[in-house]
Amino acid sequence: MDFIKGIKQTDTLELTQLLELEIENQTVKVNGMVHTIRNMGNVAFIILRKREGLVQCIYEEGISQFDLKDVKEGAAVEITGVVTNSEKAPNGIEIRIKALLILSEPEKPLPLAISKWKLNTSLEAKLNYRSVSLRNIRERAKFKIQEGIVRGFRDFLYQQGFTEIHTPKIGAKGAEGGSNIFKLDYFHTPAVLAQSPQLYKQMMVGVFDRVFETGPVFRAEKHNTKRHLNEYTSLDFEFGYIQGFEDIMAMETGFLQYTMALLEKEYAQELHILDITLPNAEQIPSVRFDEAKELAAEKYSRTIKNPFDLEPEEELLIGQYFKEEYDSDFVFVTHYPSKKRPFYAMDDPKDARFTLSFDLLFRGMEITTGGQRVHEYQMLADKMKARDMSQEGLEQYLDTFRYGMPPHGGLGIGLERLTMKLTDEDNVRETTLFPRDLSRLEP
Amino acid sequence: MDFIKGIKQTDTLELTQLLELEIENQTVKVNGMVHTIRNMGNVAFIILRKREGLVQCIYEEGISQFDLKDVKEGAAVEITGVVTNSEKAPNGIEIRIKALLILSEPEKPLPLAISKWKLNTSLEAKLNYRSVSLRNIRERAKFKIQEGIVRGFRDFLYQQGFTEIHTPKIGAKGAEGGSNIFKLDYFHTPAVLAQSPQLYKQMMVGVFDRVFETGPVFRAEKHNTKRHLNEYTSLDFEFGYIQGFEDIMAMETGFLQYTMALLEKEYAQELHILDITLPNAEQIPSVRFDEAKELAAEKYSRTIKNPFDLEPEEELLIGQYFKEEYDSDFVFVTHYPSKKRPFYAMDDPKDARFTLSFDLLFRGMEITTGGQRVHEYQMLADKMKARDMSQEGLEQYLDTFRYGMPPHGGLGIGLERLTMKLTDEDNVRETTLFPRDLSRLEP
Repeated sequence: MDFIKGIKQTDTLELTQLLELEIENQTVKVNGMVHTIRNMGNVAFIILRKREGLVQCIYEEGISQFDLKDVKEGAAVEITGVVTNSEKAPNGIEIRIKALLILSEPEKPLPLAISKWKLNTSLEAKLNYRSVSLRNIRERAKFKIQEGIVRGFRDFLYQQGFTEIHTPKIGAKGAEGGSNIFKLDYFHTPAVLAQSPQLYKQMMVGVFDRVFETGPVFRAEKHNTKRHLNEYTSLDFEFGYIQGFEDIMAMETGFLQYTMALLEKEYAQELHILDITLPNAEQIPSVRFDEAKELAAEKYSRTIKNPFDLEPEEELLIGQYFKEEYDSDFVFVTHYPSKKRPFYAMDDPKDARFTLSFDLLFRGMEITTGGQRVHEYQMLADKMKARDMSQEGLEQYLDTFRYGMPPHGGLGIGLERLTMKLTDEDNVRETTLFPRDLSRLEP
Repeated sequence: MDFIKGIKQTDTLELTQLLELEIENQTVKVNGMVHTIRNMGNVAFIILRKREGLVQCIYEEGISQFDLKDVKEGAAVEITGVVTNSEKAPNGIEIRIKALLILSEPEKPLPLAISKWKLNTSLEAKLNYRSVSLRNIRERAKFKIQEGIVRGFRDFLYQQGFTEIHTPKIGAKGAEGGSNIFKLDYFHTPAVLAQSPQLYKQMMVGVFDRVFETGPVFRAEKHNTKRHLNEYTSLDFEFGYIQGFEDIMAMETGFLQYTMALLEKEYAQELHILDITLPNAEQIPSVRFDEAKELAAEKYSRTIKNPFDLEPEEELLIGQYFKEEYDSDFVFVTHYPSKKRPFYAMDDPKDARFTLSFDLLFRGMEITTGGQRVHEYQMLADKMKARDMSQEGLEQYLDTFRYGMPPHGGLGIGLERLTMKLTDEDNVRETTLFPRDLSRLEP
């Protein structure tokens, strides 16, 4: 019998340690995957890929104690060598190899040239070879940025007194209704996959006052566009005791401010790799839906076709307008028409044709939908009746309001879309690890 | 047009502020839900429930400017009053009410006596009225502890250089195989819900070296026991460059140590409410599967029925053994039989009937399954062949190994089970916000 006592210091160094420790001319051990080999004859550069970046290692004939031809790109290796400073090497250091131990070997040469700075291949190939294409440093960096966004979301909300919740993805009824629901058989009972944690997070506002969730949502939409996925990660929050729906936009602005600062501080390397200029979220313009449509129509000489909806092209123009006029990458568009919002949206008491709701556009694309919700049972029941909605399957949600609920609201942010716009990609699949769309269920 | 500038200071105070600020005899504003009212005649206690705890407010006839009979339990209110110290009140303060504003009203009296210290009702009723039962302070506290566990998991792993990933829950094939897979129709293609992020997290080890995910997993098991759910939250990590499968147990031990310290520091109030004694994770005994069975059989005079499996009762006895003999709430049981582990498990090179894998038992129940994985294509292909497994639907997973992968391993922790054992509950539904089981799909 043994005792396990927790993590031990390993004898291999990570990149940060190589850079921070004063170890020039010392012998160190480093492991990683052979990213690329450049053979110059009796000298060769073996570039190791580690989680924090690349490390240049030098093979020198007669000094390095192994046969260069035994080392393949894609092998996992452990290198022992001497650290030397080198201005030309990535991160300013290199390791002169004494010995190389092969930990595991690939069976085939890599199908993509992942060591190129830009992975010059089609989106289809990138997605088909996902576990290979992401070994490219730039491709990988996008998902570190994505991690930073989720971290920022959670850390900011913890600070603001929110509680994290985990709500079920299989349920009896969809939160948003409509036809875009995946159905399944749940032990001979019809069930659906959650389109959103909406109803659950509202139910939990009466318990924790402020809640959030980061998790998958499922939309069986038959759109095959650059901005739609059938499964995506939704960053959701919901909180009570709001004094108006502006409080929700203020909370989102606070999240963006916090997260941009976090990215700048903790993800500087990835921002640099991807050449990202972070947007300024110090103040975000907020404009009514109808007004936004008019401003864009007027400035860009466009006719308003549908007064109740924003087309993607209109979102782009509204984004462009606020960039040009106010130098803002973000704009809140408020007061969406009631008929376009779900039953739980709070109508504007001044004009019930509109709701106390908003979308956030980022560089011309919707990344958030949010708003104040109805918090009184009778108002909710009346709205449902007016829409010919059945209460079936929503009894326990509705009960929540019978037993008292504070005024509240919240929002949902599409993580992959936000990452896409932040990294300046034009297809949301570029910033989704394993996208699910009409034609893609694998890998 | 307006500008949204981020979160503003509100004029209402939270409990921490009431306790930390020097505000005795000052007039403050506080909002919350009316948890309970005790009417003593011309004085009444109105207990407000806030996210951080309870606040006692005093109605005094002639001083408080509202009619007590207008206030109902379950109402959301905003109270203006004078803070006074009071030893007998929860948290040592109370507020003498000057004015009370009703923000929203319930329609019905509460169906459960949530203001009792212990919610004296059946599990069924608790689950049917989930958004009400969790308003009980003790019920709610369990989910704050659950939050703390997930926070600890993520924060510890970030520190250890792990990257957070989000993998799809709809896929073409299940990771674990078997019959416990939920099936759905994905645009006329057969699809399944993920039993585990196993294959994806392995694929990402070749990219990020170290990855984790916290998300839902789905098991269509027809068990109706106190420890099974059909949907639960899995805390998963996987990392490369391990020197042995002990490294994985060491990482989990590190997580437990970190998390117990976090709970002690940040969740002291909830630990107190629930009267929880945190387990000691400084060192965790590790014992072979066959040895563990023998130790328990010998000490508790039990016959070993099945040499290849641990029955729940056996887990209990092994837990009891290590509690009695080593005062440990945890025990790693290692070297599970190969025939009981999935194809991706690494067999012990010394004896291929066993695997380099483990379960972690906590107070006699399995809360983790983990181990080293096969990292070479040919070994994986051979294992699949020996099991008569088809490669169909696993091509891209298998390709990952053709192109090189470091030695690696990882684990999955059942969040609700860990919470259950930590809070000393005997049914996993007690520590699941909205459980899904054979007979429950709502709320």
